[in-house]
Amino acid sequence: MENYAPFFVLGAAVLALIFAAYKFFAVKKLPEGTELMASISSKIRSGAMAYLKRQYKTVGIFFVVMVVLLAVLAGFGFLTPFVPFAFLTGGFFSGLSGFVGMKIATYANSRTANGAKEGLNKGLKIAFSSGTVMGMTVVGLGLLDISVWFILLKFVFRLPIDEIMAAMLTFGMGASSMALFARVGGGIFTKAADVGADLVGKVEAGIPEDDPRNPAVIADNVGDNVGDVAGMGADLYESYVGSIISCGALAVAAGHGIGGVLLPMLIAAIGIVASIVSTFFVSTKESATQKMLLGSLRKGTYSAAIISAIASFILIWKLMPGENGLFGAVISGLVAGVLIGFFTEYYTSDSYKPTQKLSESSGTGAATIIIDGIALGMRSTAIPVIIIGISVIASYFFAGGMGSFESGLYGVGLSAVGMLSTLGITLATDAYGPVADNAGGIAEMSGLPGEVRERTDALDSLGNTTAATGKGFAIGSAALTALALIVSYTDKIQDLDPTKLNLTITNPATLIGLFVGAMLPFLFSAMTMQAVGRAAQKIVVEVRRQFREIKGLLEGKAEADYTSCVDICTKSSLKEMVAPAALGVLAPIVVGLVLGCNGVVGMLAGALVSGFVLAIMMANSGGSWDNAKKYIEAGNFNGKGSENHKAAVVGDTVGDPFKDTSGPSVNILIKLLSMVSIVFASIVVTYGGFGLF
Amino acid sequence: MENYAPFFVLGAAVLALIFAAYKFFAVKKLPEGTELMASISSKIRSGAMAYLKRQYKTVGIFFVVMVVLLAVLAGFGFLTPFVPFAFLTGGFFSGLSGFVGMKIATYANSRTANGAKEGLNKGLKIAFSSGTVMGMTVVGLGLLDISVWFILLKFVFRLPIDEIMAAMLTFGMGASSMALFARVGGGIFTKAADVGADLVGKVEAGIPEDDPRNPAVIADNVGDNVGDVAGMGADLYESYVGSIISCGALAVAAGHGIGGVLLPMLIAAIGIVASIVSTFFVSTKESATQKMLLGSLRKGTYSAAIISAIASFILIWKLMPGENGLFGAVISGLVAGVLIGFFTEYYTSDSYKPTQKLSESSGTGAATIIIDGIALGMRSTAIPVIIIGISVIASYFFAGGMGSFESGLYGVGLSAVGMLSTLGITLATDAYGPVADNAGGIAEMSGLPGEVRERTDALDSLGNTTAATGKGFAIGSAALTALALIVSYTDKIQDLDPTKLNLTITNPATLIGLFVGAMLPFLFSAMTMQAVGRAAQKIVVEVRRQFREIKGLLEGKAEADYTSCVDICTKSSLKEMVAPAALGVLAPIVVGLVLGCNGVVGMLAGALVSGFVLAIMMANSGGSWDNAKKYIEAGNFNGKGSENHKAAVVGDTVGDPFKDTSGPSVNILIKLLSMVSIVFASIVVTYGGFGLF
Repeated sequence: MENYAPFFVLGAAVLALIFAAYKFFAVKKLPEGTELMASISSKIRSGAMAYLKRQYKTVGIFFVVMVVLLAVLAGFGFLTPFVPFAFLTGGFFSGLSGFVGMKIATYANSRTANGAKEGLNKGLKIAFSSGTVMGMTVVGLGLLDISVWFILLKFVFRLPIDEIMAAMLTFGMGASSMALFARVGGGIFTKAADVGADLVGKVEAGIPEDDPRNPAVIADNVGDNVGDVAGMGADLYESYVGSIISCGALAVAAGHGIGGVLLPMLIAAIGIVASIVSTFFVSTKESATQKMLLGSLRKGTYSAAIISAIASFILIWKLMPGENGLFGAVISGLVAGVLIGFFTEYYTSDSYKPTQKLSESSGTGAATIIIDGIALGMRSTAIPVIIIGISVIASYFFAGGMGSFESGLYGVGLSAVGMLSTLGITLATDAYGPVADNAGGIAEMSGLPGEVRERTDALDSLGNTTAATGKGFAIGSAALTALALIVSYTDKIQDLDPTKLNLTITNPATLIGLFVGAMLPFLFSAMTMQAVGRAAQKIVVEVRRQFREIKGLLEGKAEADYTSCVDICTKSSLKEMVAPAALGVLAPIVVGLVLGCNGVVGMLAGALVSGFVLAIMMANSGGSWDNAKKYIEAGNFNGKGSENHKAAVVGDTVGDPFKDTSGPSVNILIKLLSMVSIVFASIVVTYGGFGLF
Repeated sequence: MENYAPFFVLGAAVLALIFAAYKFFAVKKLPEGTELMASISSKIRSGAMAYLKRQYKTVGIFFVVMVVLLAVLAGFGFLTPFVPFAFLTGGFFSGLSGFVGMKIATYANSRTANGAKEGLNKGLKIAFSSGTVMGMTVVGLGLLDISVWFILLKFVFRLPIDEIMAAMLTFGMGASSMALFARVGGGIFTKAADVGADLVGKVEAGIPEDDPRNPAVIADNVGDNVGDVAGMGADLYESYVGSIISCGALAVAAGHGIGGVLLPMLIAAIGIVASIVSTFFVSTKESATQKMLLGSLRKGTYSAAIISAIASFILIWKLMPGENGLFGAVISGLVAGVLIGFFTEYYTSDSYKPTQKLSESSGTGAATIIIDGIALGMRSTAIPVIIIGISVIASYFFAGGMGSFESGLYGVGLSAVGMLSTLGITLATDAYGPVADNAGGIAEMSGLPGEVRERTDALDSLGNTTAATGKGFAIGSAALTALALIVSYTDKIQDLDPTKLNLTITNPATLIGLFVGAMLPFLFSAMTMQAVGRAAQKIVVEVRRQFREIKGLLEGKAEADYTSCVDICTKSSLKEMVAPAALGVLAPIVVGLVLGCNGVVGMLAGALVSGFVLAIMMANSGGSWDNAKKYIEAGNFNGKGSENHKAAVVGDTVGDPFKDTSGPSVNILIKLLSMVSIVFASIVVTYGGFGLF
């Protein structure tokens, strides 16, 4: 069994990649529409690619430095020699996931707009196919990386299973670093362009969104791709891989042996097959309402979950006889993900009371909608915390936590894997949103008939709802994965020097670590938010300059210089992403050297809990402001152009960096902190804490 | 020694109260100014008293229920019979501190305005005398409560020292509950009146602040008293008492015996004497600049700190021979308080870059000043966390943490006592702010010459700076006290049933407790912020109604119905304070019953670290917005009435509930959670956790 199972996992990975390639070329073959549409799409594509290339160059420097550092540490015996290579592949594949996703998204945008000319169903199919490419690429590359390494270490280097997992844990650090750069850089780009374009275009010049006269309009559309597509791809690649390998490491600690390590990989492999099958269920009638569209997408994700669950049950029954409780752990993760997604939707969608009430508070001006939006986000953190709590307890006891602490924690790891097992299709329903958004922009800029824009808007608005579910999975799995990583860290210290470990919560080093950890997500969010502000400021200056200097621009007689805005966004987001990323990498090392390993554990736990709460708050405040504005634009509370609307626009602008830059990046930060801690554990154990802690 | 020291402490308490009474009557003897001034002051006073009476009635119901509950628990042997009484006295004195402070503040406001007619020095002296009454009352009643209980339990009931401290710990719960009600209720009142008055008066009707035509103007001035004075009095009473008794409990755990228990009380007694002496150093020349005024107040606080430090050194040297390190612990707390205060000032005062830059960001509108203000608050959390971390480590090791864990923690408790030992005078410099603010309002409403208003404004603006220092002490001591209380809780569980204790941070119950704890300050802040919103909404409706229905009001020909606004604020703040307070009391009980005692410890730690960070963020964002607006009003960035100013007003309005309602209440919440946990510990140990945790 253990001899062929890794190859079955590899097979599933290859299958996902083949399916992704097939869909990729199927989409690429479709007509792009008019020449103008093709040219706009090509401008967006080349802007996005130029950004990514420069981003990879910047990140490359970081990776070179880190690889050299890791190699030196490996040379001194602090790390195994595999670590630098594992670090590199983790980063490479994480970046590649984003690259492929963006490539297809920038091909699919004009084709979706063109498809929407024929009808809603056609548009949905193209956008969803492009999302599928992304989803399958992420899970395919993730499992490929995991299975190839596993096969190499087991069958070529013939390491024992505990050393295999110790080595593999470290490549998560590569993936996390890359993901953080991609999320932060992309997040700054997209919001700087968005805020900059809106502040001058909509507010000062009074021209509509996506108007071709706005010099930042291409940058805005490029931003959707580099932030929402490439950033999200790298992010979810990291979550997916992180959950599987941390669960494997916990299996070793729990004494489940190789069967326990293979189980999460096999569940992921099953999830791929289930996701591929379920993509065929997604389609809709031409006369479909918003509700039917959503139902069609849900048919896909629910059937994948059901197929996955049944197959996992059989797998656990056969692979781990007598451990049927593990199935309960997998399911509790799956259910928690769905529930968090539902409550995210409840708090942020304008179909429900909270956001409708938020719109109403626009009646007393910008200040009250801001206060109420922040309060809404803060309040919305309670239910996800309770869900995660119940899910942790359930999976812990299902997996035998009563008898053995380690077995219980393995259950927690499995619940994270369960939550992400159908990522292939949940990500597809999520990633299609930005494509539909772009398609709408292209429809607007190339002057397609109003009904086309209406159709892409219907697709886009649906994307907001599915994105809420996606966020639920991302945020829930981040919490569970980070938790598993913290435990892996303590296991590692236990192996290195058990005398150093004193995790009593009242230990001063642990307590101070908790304080520092709780503060880090706040500091990190401050840095990313202010970065957006500074970058947006530059766009404002440039757009004002073009309006002033390019004659006839506002009358539509001259063309704007789009590339200069793309350029400014690229340069400033790359510059601005360095400091927050450095915080994520350096904090665990500094805290480790000062406070020792118990301080690190405190820091990780503090960052996990405060980061989880802060990320939900920022995501939900931001999402709710966005939809409150849309609710007013749909004609409620005096509608577009009213004082209510102006107040809601302020809320939406504040929410932009909340929900698209800082919030999602915090999710990655909490995992990166753990990954870095694990890699540098032996240094910290040897030199950390001044011998005091 | 141990036989007369408690009486020395009692003596210091009585001395403080006598000094307070002397100052009280000295202020009351001064002339009130014109008849109009006296009548405005009397309106404010009667509004504030009416509020307090109703508040005590509402809180009284809660206290009756709790006392009955505690009595039943004591009857079943879960608590000692002293607990219900201790709970009552804690609540009573906490409330009384607020009451006396408010009484004097509402007498001093008109007298300060009248004194300011003569000159700056006169105004300062009166306002500061009134602050002194408040400061001395708080420390006097605090030490009175502690010393009388100690004397009773030791000399009358002849309990052993460990049982004395166990009983005394529980009266902190009474103080904390009262403080939370006072802070939340007062905070909602003051901000509802402020926001309501501004939204209709300043923004809609375009009349200046403190204009007598505004029907909410008296409510606004009443709010300053019930929030900033009565709320703060109860709050700091609770901090002061909490730090002393938790330190005493730690002394018992560390095996220091009665000497260790008496030390914090004696340090506090010394602090009282030092504070009284130092009040005589506060005065200024007539031609004083802002800087000289500040210098004069600082002369008072610094000399109190120095006298206190020297006397503490001698005390420790004599009382605890061979334990000179404890002096280091006291000093590290004192230094940490001053440093946190300084950085609070750095981030929030418009004399420094951060707030000046925030004013500048008003140039791109309300959204950017909101984003930057939140980011500023988030960023400002880093340094206080590091200061607290260093202070904990330093006091831990100074007190012998290398040799014994418990001794080290006793040092942490002492550092909190050190920080608060000179509260008598630091609170005086803090509490004089609202008096100066009220004096300004009265000067405006009674049409005194412009120079009087200028003088009261100078005093008020200085009050903002000293309030920043005061906040540093309040926030820093809250963190250290809560920390000491958490340790006291674990000690208590250790006594009750050591087999239940498993505080490894990776224990699932502890971890989930951490999550829940980290979420509680967010949920609590959401509740209090939305309460302000709802209450302000009612004021808006009422003020609009009066402007519409009372003919000649806006022309100054008819008088507004002030009492209706006071009434609305009173009713709605009392209604709104119940839910957040209930959260603070119920959360530890529910978490304890579900997750057991280890879950409770996790919850306390999570709430402590996330609450500390969130409270600083809210306080500093709010303070900075306030001063950014004032900086613009002083003529920078296009000055008053400009678009910049409008944006800054939005920031200031958002900041109001941040800094004056939610932020300071979170400080109390984290201590109340610990206190409730300690009182209900035996129930939780017996019935909590379903036998699972």
